[in-house]
Amino acid sequence: MPTQPTATRVVLASRPSGKPVAENFRLEAETVRDLAEGEVLLQILYLSLDPYMRGRMDDAKSYAKPVEIGGVMEGGTVARVLRTRNAAFDPGDIVLSHSGWQSHAISNGSDLRKLDPGQAPVTTALGVLGMPGFTAYAGLRNIGKPKAGETVVVAAASGAVGSAVGQIARIFGARVVGIAGGREKCDYLRDVLGFDAAVDHHSSDFATALAAACPQGIDVYFENVGGPVWSAVFPLLNDFARVPVCGLIAHYNEDSSVANSHDQLPAVMRAILRKSLTIRGFIQREFADQRSDFYREAGAWIAEGRLKHKEDIVVGLENAPEAFIGLLEGKNFGKLIVRVAS
Amino acid sequence: MPTQPTATRVVLASRPSGKPVAENFRLEAETVRDLAEGEVLLQILYLSLDPYMRGRMDDAKSYAKPVEIGGVMEGGTVARVLRTRNAAFDPGDIVLSHSGWQSHAISNGSDLRKLDPGQAPVTTALGVLGMPGFTAYAGLRNIGKPKAGETVVVAAASGAVGSAVGQIARIFGARVVGIAGGREKCDYLRDVLGFDAAVDHHSSDFATALAAACPQGIDVYFENVGGPVWSAVFPLLNDFARVPVCGLIAHYNEDSSVANSHDQLPAVMRAILRKSLTIRGFIQREFADQRSDFYREAGAWIAEGRLKHKEDIVVGLENAPEAFIGLLEGKNFGKLIVRVAS
Repeated sequence: MPTQPTATRVVLASRPSGKPVAENFRLEAETVRDLAEGEVLLQILYLSLDPYMRGRMDDAKSYAKPVEIGGVMEGGTVARVLRTRNAAFDPGDIVLSHSGWQSHAISNGSDLRKLDPGQAPVTTALGVLGMPGFTAYAGLRNIGKPKAGETVVVAAASGAVGSAVGQIARIFGARVVGIAGGREKCDYLRDVLGFDAAVDHHSSDFATALAAACPQGIDVYFENVGGPVWSAVFPLLNDFARVPVCGLIAHYNEDSSVANSHDQLPAVMRAILRKSLTIRGFIQREFADQRSDFYREAGAWIAEGRLKHKEDIVVGLENAPEAFIGLLEGKNFGKLIVRVAS
Repeated sequence: MPTQPTATRVVLASRPSGKPVAENFRLEAETVRDLAEGEVLLQILYLSLDPYMRGRMDDAKSYAKPVEIGGVMEGGTVARVLRTRNAAFDPGDIVLSHSGWQSHAISNGSDLRKLDPGQAPVTTALGVLGMPGFTAYAGLRNIGKPKAGETVVVAAASGAVGSAVGQIARIFGARVVGIAGGREKCDYLRDVLGFDAAVDHHSSDFATALAAACPQGIDVYFENVGGPVWSAVFPLLNDFARVPVCGLIAHYNEDSSVANSHDQLPAVMRAILRKSLTIRGFIQREFADQRSDFYREAGAWIAEGRLKHKEDIVVGLENAPEAFIGLLEGKNFGKLIVRVAS
């Protein structure tokens, strides 16, 4: 019988108040247990870091259960089958799993999807061909519904979801304006991804620049940040504009005891009424029956060079907490992935 | 040639700041001009008073143009054709028009719809079989989409839109909770209209009573008031709840310089995300192609006794301003209509 490997994992040590800090996480090690019949032992190769994970660190009511104190942080992963007592899997198979922030995991196979490394780099299953890409696709197809010539605005536009939103909206015929932090990211949006315009939300004249970049107003705002960006976008929304809401990264770290002195809700509700706006929160799994369409269409777009992606790879599970804290501050440039093993 | 009648009309004398007052309106008289070829002279019989008119008194950007200072107040009307130089109309025809707050109007006929007094009381064309009824129908059919067994909540529930929302939602199989001001209105909702529950928003324990009346949460909130009612409804919204927004009567008179000290927007946006909520503003004319369905279905429901209505009739055009001011304070009980002539 082979020696059992030692697994390392990052657990939630305590719930953050506001911004997460290193002390909210704890690295642990333990020996992996034996497999039962039907199980496989996975070695995690790549861990996806995504903004939604901040929500799992709170115990607020949500569509998903919070991570328990002492529990392994949740997350999508690409893994290699190390050992198997499940006939559906062979050692060496590469699979998509949701194993969380750890080096090894045991699965009964029901949550695994085999990946073909010959078809696409396996890390794309965590990004452009995974949950973030499908979030972009599902939100545009079902809620944003951009028509040719309409203006689509997306924030965090160089990130995993935002970059897919902008490129897919362009494929749908829309004019696309991206919002990102810093000149390098804005240049990337225009020069590499082909966005029609890019606006730097760090600049002092951000709201004015956004208005200038949207001379026909905004028909679809793909909301994944909230906060000050929303305030700049909101006055530019056209009649019948659609706002799919898939994230609110600007609010995740908010201390709810710090109140804004001005209630923005009445103005927003009045605009919803006067402009016949649609604001719709969603999570991609609501549209799970469209995943096969997505894999087919997005695969073709990637092959044609119309849907590009960029990865920001951090090496070592022990560096996941710092990388995740940086993600919430916009420090990553591209889809943030931790290489757990090679 | 017959003597020209003298027309009376109510014009917008000045724009209100906050609540409208009598001085914002002015009664004027003038002699009606001769008809040109193709025109008809209308004698207004009934004028509909509706909350949306408050919006027309402001010059804020909206889907509709504001009434100009010195212009006739806008409004739906039922009228009798007095004279005609249009072959499509005979003297004595009863028509639905949008003639505003006046005793007489001249039309080229293109905006008129003939009513059959033998089929339904003509005032229903301003209420349950008119714009308010269709607002209820279109908002439920296209946005609220209540499923059998779901909980639908509507405020201003004894009013023209609210009473139709509740009854149509019950016809669609939903459990319906109405919110109204005062015991008499609440009794009417339960005892006459057959609502499953009614909650008095004047009561000191309103939020608690609403929660108790919605043990399964709220799946559809038909928003026509805003303000404190929204604050009580909002925490009760279920995952995937739909909020058609057709009015915000509580905000119409708001002085926007008086800011709430607490910003409710972040909490609302977070709930939109966490609960996959849909908030959608609309005006009924967006769904104009469903009007024939509405006339057919609502006509049948009325004939079957499943869709009832109540009118609150005020006599005399000169009393329209006071009645309208009262409408914004919830003083009416049923669809508010001014009898301009009999």
